[in-house]
Amino acid sequence: MVNQKYLDKAEVLIEALPYIQRFNRKIIVVKYGGSAMIDEELQQNVIKDVVLLKLVGFKPILVHGGGKEISRWVGKVGMEPKFVNGLRVTDEDTMEVAEMVLNKVNKGLVSMVESLGVKAVGLSGKDGGLLQVNKKFSNGEDIGYVGEIKNVNPQVIHDLLEKDFLPIICPIGTDDSYHSYNINADDAASAIAEAMNAEKLAFLSDIEGVYYDKDDPSTLISELTVAEAGGLIESGHVAGGMIPKLQNCITAIENGVNRVHILDGRIPHCLLLEIFTNKGIGTAILRNEEEKYSNENK
Amino acid sequence: MVNQKYLDKAEVLIEALPYIQRFNRKIIVVKYGGSAMIDEELQQNVIKDVVLLKLVGFKPILVHGGGKEISRWVGKVGMEPKFVNGLRVTDEDTMEVAEMVLNKVNKGLVSMVESLGVKAVGLSGKDGGLLQVNKKFSNGEDIGYVGEIKNVNPQVIHDLLEKDFLPIICPIGTDDSYHSYNINADDAASAIAEAMNAEKLAFLSDIEGVYYDKDDPSTLISELTVAEAGGLIESGHVAGGMIPKLQNCITAIENGVNRVHILDGRIPHCLLLEIFTNKGIGTAILRNEEEKYSNENK
Amino acid sequence: MVNQKYLDKAEVLIEALPYIQRFNRKIIVVKYGGSAMIDEELQQNVIKDVVLLKLVGFKPILVHGGGKEISRWVGKVGMEPKFVNGLRVTDEDTMEVAEMVLNKVNKGLVSMVESLGVKAVGLSGKDGGLLQVNKKFSNGEDIGYVGEIKNVNPQVIHDLLEKDFLPIICPIGTDDSYHSYNINADDAASAIAEAMNAEKLAFLSDIEGVYYDKDDPSTLISELTVAEAGGLIESGHVAGGMIPKLQNCITAIENGVNRVHILDGRIPHCLLLEIFTNKGIGTAILRNEEEKYSNENK
Amino acid sequence: MVNQKYLDKAEVLIEALPYIQRFNRKIIVVKYGGSAMIDEELQQNVIKDVVLLKLVGFKPILVHGGGKEISRWVGKVGMEPKFVNGLRVTDEDTMEVAEMVLNKVNKGLVSMVESLGVKAVGLSGKDGGLLQVNKKFSNGEDIGYVGEIKNVNPQVIHDLLEKDFLPIICPIGTDDSYHSYNINADDAASAIAEAMNAEKLAFLSDIEGVYYDKDDPSTLISELTVAEAGGLIESGHVAGGMIPKLQNCITAIENGVNRVHILDGRIPHCLLLEIFTNKGIGTAILRNEEEKYSNENK
Amino acid sequence: MVNQKYLDKAEVLIEALPYIQRFNRKIIVVKYGGSAMIDEELQQNVIKDVVLLKLVGFKPILVHGGGKEISRWVGKVGMEPKFVNGLRVTDEDTMEVAEMVLNKVNKGLVSMVESLGVKAVGLSGKDGGLLQVNKKFSNGEDIGYVGEIKNVNPQVIHDLLEKDFLPIICPIGTDDSYHSYNINADDAASAIAEAMNAEKLAFLSDIEGVYYDKDDPSTLISELTVAEAGGLIESGHVAGGMIPKLQNCITAIENGVNRVHILDGRIPHCLLLEIFTNKGIGTAILRNEEEKYSNENK
Amino acid sequence: MVNQKYLDKAEVLIEALPYIQRFNRKIIVVKYGGSAMIDEELQQNVIKDVVLLKLVGFKPILVHGGGKEISRWVGKVGMEPKFVNGLRVTDEDTMEVAEMVLNKVNKGLVSMVESLGVKAVGLSGKDGGLLQVNKKFSNGEDIGYVGEIKNVNPQVIHDLLEKDFLPIICPIGTDDSYHSYNINADDAASAIAEAMNAEKLAFLSDIEGVYYDKDDPSTLISELTVAEAGGLIESGHVAGGMIPKLQNCITAIENGVNRVHILDGRIPHCLLLEIFTNKGIGTAILRNEEEKYSNENK
Repeated sequence: MVNQKYLDKAEVLIEALPYIQRFNRKIIVVKYGGSAMIDEELQQNVIKDVVLLKLVGFKPILVHGGGKEISRWVGKVGMEPKFVNGLRVTDEDTMEVAEMVLNKVNKGLVSMVESLGVKAVGLSGKDGGLLQVNKKFSNGEDIGYVGEIKNVNPQVIHDLLEKDFLPIICPIGTDDSYHSYNINADDAASAIAEAMNAEKLAFLSDIEGVYYDKDDPSTLISELTVAEAGGLIESGHVAGGMIPKLQNCITAIENGVNRVHILDGRIPHCLLLEIFTNKGIGTAILRNEEEKYSNENK
Repeated sequence: MVNQKYLDKAEVLIEALPYIQRFNRKIIVVKYGGSAMIDEELQQNVIKDVVLLKLVGFKPILVHGGGKEISRWVGKVGMEPKFVNGLRVTDEDTMEVAEMVLNKVNKGLVSMVESLGVKAVGLSGKDGGLLQVNKKFSNGEDIGYVGEIKNVNPQVIHDLLEKDFLPIICPIGTDDSYHSYNINADDAASAIAEAMNAEKLAFLSDIEGVYYDKDDPSTLISELTVAEAGGLIESGHVAGGMIPKLQNCITAIENGVNRVHILDGRIPHCLLLEIFTNKGIGTAILRNEEEKYSNENK
Repeated sequence: MVNQKYLDKAEVLIEALPYIQRFNRKIIVVKYGGSAMIDEELQQNVIKDVVLLKLVGFKPILVHGGGKEISRWVGKVGMEPKFVNGLRVTDEDTMEVAEMVLNKVNKGLVSMVESLGVKAVGLSGKDGGLLQVNKKFSNGEDIGYVGEIKNVNPQVIHDLLEKDFLPIICPIGTDDSYHSYNINADDAASAIAEAMNAEKLAFLSDIEGVYYDKDDPSTLISELTVAEAGGLIESGHVAGGMIPKLQNCITAIENGVNRVHILDGRIPHCLLLEIFTNKGIGTAILRNEEEKYSNENK
Repeated sequence: MVNQKYLDKAEVLIEALPYIQRFNRKIIVVKYGGSAMIDEELQQNVIKDVVLLKLVGFKPILVHGGGKEISRWVGKVGMEPKFVNGLRVTDEDTMEVAEMVLNKVNKGLVSMVESLGVKAVGLSGKDGGLLQVNKKFSNGEDIGYVGEIKNVNPQVIHDLLEKDFLPIICPIGTDDSYHSYNINADDAASAIAEAMNAEKLAFLSDIEGVYYDKDDPSTLISELTVAEAGGLIESGHVAGGMIPKLQNCITAIENGVNRVHILDGRIPHCLLLEIFTNKGIGTAILRNEEEKYSNENK
Repeated sequence: MVNQKYLDKAEVLIEALPYIQRFNRKIIVVKYGGSAMIDEELQQNVIKDVVLLKLVGFKPILVHGGGKEISRWVGKVGMEPKFVNGLRVTDEDTMEVAEMVLNKVNKGLVSMVESLGVKAVGLSGKDGGLLQVNKKFSNGEDIGYVGEIKNVNPQVIHDLLEKDFLPIICPIGTDDSYHSYNINADDAASAIAEAMNAEKLAFLSDIEGVYYDKDDPSTLISELTVAEAGGLIESGHVAGGMIPKLQNCITAIENGVNRVHILDGRIPHCLLLEIFTNKGIGTAILRNEEEKYSNENK
Repeated sequence: MVNQKYLDKAEVLIEALPYIQRFNRKIIVVKYGGSAMIDEELQQNVIKDVVLLKLVGFKPILVHGGGKEISRWVGKVGMEPKFVNGLRVTDEDTMEVAEMVLNKVNKGLVSMVESLGVKAVGLSGKDGGLLQVNKKFSNGEDIGYVGEIKNVNPQVIHDLLEKDFLPIICPIGTDDSYHSYNINADDAASAIAEAMNAEKLAFLSDIEGVYYDKDDPSTLISELTVAEAGGLIESGHVAGGMIPKLQNCITAIENGVNRVHILDGRIPHCLLLEIFTNKGIGTAILRNEEEKYSNENK
């Protein structure tokens, strides 16, 4: 007799069938940051999830940040990290360190993917002219080489996907005179998802999702329309870093991404759980009311 | 907190990763017959397994028989099934019934695959001149339109795989004057696996595998080299229908198939279990001693 | 000196030149049924004609019925064929027999084409999800598994034509729960011609064409506009089975087929005669008055 | 009733079936010269034949001369045509006239083919560096710009065939310093047939074929092996212009052309007669004895 | 130390960089006639320029005339060249000579290009049905086989460019009954540039450019909008052959060509000078005022 | 009149013609390091040269080091650069800094190329598994994460070239457990040139070339066969860093690279001078004596 354990395993694979079908050859942009980048086991899990998505026929694109590692190196070379309104003030020296760190992290992720047998190429927004930016001001204040995305030229991503690579992207862009700029990784992920007409955009972060009352864990919202999300911002139910994150979600959907997820990167394999089970986790932002609870559009 | 059940599910998917990688774009011929064709639930399971293999990047080819259904219809039109040495004596009328039944079964399987969202085309050996046969005699006795395969022209299968179809094949061939012949489904599966340079050939049957002593279930052999398989035949340890089956395994490997499996089609999802877990089930026939216990070549 | 007989032969080939040019790479759907399917010599002739069209650069698609053979087998298994308003009442058992017979006939035609050196694949409406149907009622009466076409998914035909196969199709479809349905072969041919944007649709039947007075052979109409055809139905000049046939012709043209022909399948090589000589035979249904007598649009 | 005349026409087309199949996508080089170039009706016939071959799936290549027209123009500009051992003495002025005339004839043939609805491009051996020559001497005597082919660069022909053009070629080549040379059209046709691995090479000339006794029309030889052809030359049974022609046939077969035909261009449609009927006309040169009378290799 | 001379050379190449980039894969039609065709050194220069354009990634197309050479041969065969309103009266005989001469010149240019290592094919308007004409009258007077272009079928040029050939075209076309017609080479170049959506059209002629006062060399105009060009014609500042030339420039731009140049073919390498230096030479005709002096659109 | 200066420019471009032809679509690997990386104007020159090579049809690949910049940053974070036998001792921390710096330099070069209108992607040896290494010891001494190349997997470069990118590569590889290793840039360039079957490999360094007597500038050797180069090493005429550089030249040629150049990166546009003029600069290493002074194989 075959052990029940094995039969159960087969069942799990069979249950994945409809999800594999639904997302076959679809583009999924994963923004990867926070704890999931620091804890080595979580990191392994995220990479394995993305590799699995690639192998079963999805077209994942990984966009990552590196905030804490940048701060560590800024310190290491004897500089003081400086923030204005939550944005890193990025002078010439800081920019240089940030670019070094992000590219090192980037190629490290490439190596992890390669070690699992999937081909990867690490890009910054400089490669193929991927990310073009304007200088960004914080309430009119000059905060240095911080960019807001003006244009995405996704050809290099299309080319790499066609050649079966998994593109891994760090959020550095250039302005018209080809100077380097730091870009918020959430912004970069959103802009790339839009330019690639992604099916899904998933933000892996250090929060469980969006709360109706952020001090009450029981008020986690599992599905939110674009309109409702806008309402939460206006009504002040969400605050701080959640505002730009929700704003990115809204913009992404308005620009053609089908669904956006805010996932808790601290849960192992949160990506797989979201995609391959009917247990939606975190908060999904949907186009409209009709899509709510509709498994079809999950 | 996320329920442990879900985390376990994610783990199962992750465990499948190395197997998905190993067989990516590899051709796997599945011979499907016996109980697994009659029991409706088993049938659903087999089809789902094959569809999953297709979706995660394998190139499965399904070859099926229809013995019991043929007998039923032969009776229904008032004829008497007749066998010589275990081979159906196939006169003109029987051949006509057999061809009708096999094609009906064939298109039924096509529909099941299509209902799961995967494109399929049902072929007999007539389509694209796939299977060309010579008349087969049983110890010199004329048993009618029973064919042994003389040539396989696999172009139509290559074309359908290129266009992303799952080919489903019933074992009917034609002789030089284009008369229809019945072919043993095991023989057809082996010949097709050889012509397609398949990575794997799996026979789903009504036995657990090969026994050293067929009356003692504890003597099930999990791995067998081609040489050992030949020895079992010579020494008389295997008998009856197992002899031609083992012979097919040996020939297939000698002609380029990498590994052959005799699986118990009565176990739900036996195909997935064999391919996606390290619990090999049934009997694997290997090229040589080195491959034994080697997970690498599983 | 070269014999006049040979020179005449060369002349015939040369005369075919403009027709070969005109239909080069054009799709021609041939509905094949009636006497032409039963008389063995006529059958050979039809298949040879279609093979010739294929070889000189056309893209023929063969759609066939099998009414009489179905009736024969329904009787053979001890059932009674039953018709309501000329439509076969198709219960579960009848449907099973019909599907078996049609697929057998289908693969027989495949073999005939292959024996003439042209690659063929036999399809039912199940393959590649080709024909999707709704249940059809006859004046509100339930007549079982008789389908009317809801949707044609012609991808599988495009794929096979691209790979240089001649597709041969039997008129079986499935409903939303993937149950089998019998479809009128004329309906199937029309729907496929429309979905493939065919240049021509030719019905081979047991009548000479459309008569102004069906009891007076001298009133055979050689060209008929869509408007005139509609008039004949309304005025009651045509009746019985000719009404749905003409209706199919009208719909086909309205949906993009360029010209439809009702040909007498009892005339040897009627297809070649129609296409390769300026002696139009049978009745041609045209888009409008301008096309009448215009050799250009023949 | 359909007139017997039409049924006969259909039969002729059906009889062409096996020949169309056999030569499908095969390359056939036709050397066209002599009367067939001067008589306007014969010219029309040859072009129609070649166009028909193209349309039914062959890949014909037309190589032509223009001897008489060259002589006419040489006279027109007040020069005296001069021949040594049957080879035109080609001084600078004559070469200029020859090149002008051949290119004019060439583009005239292009226009005739285009008027029949088939795309054509006219080439000389200069286009794409097609024909490279060495200076040819006649028994040591300098006869001017007469070239013998040193190299064929068939890429331009492959490119045009791929784009579905019918290439029409006039026999002008260049030496290493890119000076123009006149080439014997038979030599050019043979060299091109060899470089293109043609299935057939057909010489249309003003003779019925090869005779055993050239003064006795009843001794026309319909099939000749390469060995026998060599024998006829050695034994002196053939003489004059027939010697280099036979020599070209032998070389062509030795270099990979399957079969060579010497046809009487004065017979209307001699090409079609040769290819589409079992009445071989003219003389066929075969590889060996086994091919004789074998319809298979016709 | 490296000699300054070499460093200067490198600088010239580097200066070409932006121009090479700007015109990469752009189509440039060059009309080549006048002195540049007669002086052997100028001819070498033009061909080298065009070959260089090809090699650095442009897609040049060469259109040439042959007026003086035609006149020479018309005389050589004892005919008298006859002109009406500057147009050659082209009777049957003259047409024959013109076609011979133009094709000879055409293949000569092919050979020159081939000798520089670039693949070329010489076309007349007959090849691939490139140029279709109507008979042209001169103020109502019949001037014989002089054609005005009715239609350009540029497929053959696209095919040759795709296969990396440099197309060289002589201005002969055919009417509906496929008779040959002589076409003004400027007209042919314009029509081809329009049909190919050329980036640039350059006329190499025997004048320095357009003058405001043709008797005062100091009034050479270097840039002219379409509107200004029209004004010059209306105001009578330009006259004679310059009128149709300017008219061609205007029409070309109105039909999609980006910029047209009238260059002095007597200046060695005038094409390279125009394209690769910021010293525009001759007269450029621009779409509008904004493009004037704008280096961007040069 | 056109100024002589402009005519001279055209001449320079025309002189480049044969070189552009010879290297059309050929792969040229450029190792870029030393002064040419530090002096900003030299850097601009090198990048412009490589961009020009790309635009005129070559396929350049840029491999760069970053030694001095690494040392600067190692210092900046308070570590002490340490060398053993000229090889940097690379502990974990140093490796991290090296990888950060090299990737930053890499993406900086990408941006410079992009600013000149050519598409570039920056790779390390991790991308696509490009460079796999073994740990290298220095005379048995452990010098940390210094790798010697075990395998090159050039697929990612082929893919990028096919998509028209200019690949820019920094010399970091991974061992079997995917740890990062520093690689000597000369070694990386050689290994990549070999794996890509490059036509040329050019080392831009801070020396004029190879001297027979390194203290006597007048003994600069302009051409050296592989055999002679080996002789110079054995006889002790070359020493120090020149030994491994020459060794790389020899190995590259033995593994299929056609010619290797040691160029003085301090000379502006040394690459263009070497390739586009007949003034060879620096030292060329050739396969054998025959190639010496042979312009053909330059």
